[in-house]
Amino acid sequence: MAVTLILGGARSGKSSRAQALAEAESDTRTFIATAEALDDEMAERIARHQSDRGKGWTTIDAPLSLADALRRSTGKVVLVDCLTLWLSNVMHHERDPDQETARLLETFDTPKTLILVSNEVGFGLVPETRLGRRFRDAQGRLNQAVAAACDRVELVVAGLPLVLK
Amino acid sequence: MAVTLILGGARSGKSSRAQALAEAESDTRTFIATAEALDDEMAERIARHQSDRGKGWTTIDAPLSLADALRRSTGKVVLVDCLTLWLSNVMHHERDPDQETARLLETFDTPKTLILVSNEVGFGLVPETRLGRRFRDAQGRLNQAVAAACDRVELVVAGLPLVLK
Amino acid sequence: MAVTLILGGARSGKSSRAQALAEAESDTRTFIATAEALDDEMAERIARHQSDRGKGWTTIDAPLSLADALRRSTGKVVLVDCLTLWLSNVMHHERDPDQETARLLETFDTPKTLILVSNEVGFGLVPETRLGRRFRDAQGRLNQAVAAACDRVELVVAGLPLVLK
Repeated sequence: MAVTLILGGARSGKSSRAQALAEAESDTRTFIATAEALDDEMAERIARHQSDRGKGWTTIDAPLSLADALRRSTGKVVLVDCLTLWLSNVMHHERDPDQETARLLETFDTPKTLILVSNEVGFGLVPETRLGRRFRDAQGRLNQAVAAACDRVELVVAGLPLVLK
Repeated sequence: MAVTLILGGARSGKSSRAQALAEAESDTRTFIATAEALDDEMAERIARHQSDRGKGWTTIDAPLSLADALRRSTGKVVLVDCLTLWLSNVMHHERDPDQETARLLETFDTPKTLILVSNEVGFGLVPETRLGRRFRDAQGRLNQAVAAACDRVELVVAGLPLVLK
Repeated sequence: MAVTLILGGARSGKSSRAQALAEAESDTRTFIATAEALDDEMAERIARHQSDRGKGWTTIDAPLSLADALRRSTGKVVLVDCLTLWLSNVMHHERDPDQETARLLETFDTPKTLILVSNEVGFGLVPETRLGRRFRDAQGRLNQAVAAACDRVELVVAGLPLVLK
């Protein structure tokens, strides 16, 4: 039906905003988590987030194969949290970000309501490391490509949404 | 009467914006400074800021006990500049940021006009140090909590205010 | 006729936005490039950007003498990309940023349409190095001064313009 991108900084309230939008939309919701449980601390944190979300959510883990997970998801509303961790995984596994982005965008043609969360990371000084600069550039390109394909884009600042599109 | 949060980046013009709002409101104004004069350079900088503000301001230093200073302040308009330095002091003295935030929010129920300045620091890459990540998270939580309790929130970019609430 | 500032983060789409505005305005356009070709990689990148812009653009290189280049430019529309690289060159050559900014602002009184691109860099943690802090402060002051003198200011996020003025 509609694809929405929720952008924001760290601890800006973007995930809460995305969940509130999803909960207002439907009772059958899928949560696609892109965080990878690489150690016990991370696994615990993921479990806590899952329990925080409460009832009415089916969770799918998709650290890498996001397009497949989106196609597999059955809820009327599908929330992806977040594209930044997914991009980090894509780059860590040396896949091509532009190619993976193209595959993601193909899934937007769907009768479901999609809500995607992503970080805005480009408002600081030039990063000191080459990897930092590569990641920042890739995140900027990803956000632009996704935003162009979305019906609605919001920037969340201190918990407050600012409509960009 | 009303509580306003002025958010902005470094050298965004957020302090000037806050001062202009305060000066338009009343002639009896209190300035709560959260910067700590740890060395001569800092002491000099604070003195210069104070003289820049000109007449009509009473200054209170409150690097840590912000809630007490707000209760003690007598002006019709009270300006706090800024919550970021205060949070940094709170964490440096190993006090609990969430507890201190709760104490701050209790002071918002006042007949005075409160204007608070804070930095938005979460729009960059993940900080390299654990302390950096902790501070960024705490600042994000603080800004969300304060914004939720405010009547008006602005984001200042290049000296220009953008109304968020 | 009018002076416009296009602010944005890294890879935010600010250059594309500025070019689209310029192309909608006139067929005789001057592009003032502030990037310095210090090595082969940079020279190649600059050449690629120039070829990307396509026809209808005259390019002037002005890593330092921006005010002179603006006076010398003949197109009805003049695009400066970007003030951040220019500021970096100004500081690298130990010129005074405030003085150079004042000289830049004098050129705004012109019958041409000026479009200037600049980065917003102050939305992260305090930079670790003194140079980083100095640059961030200078960029903030420059953006404020230019924005105050502009007829229109936009902040571009994920390719989407947000009007600030």
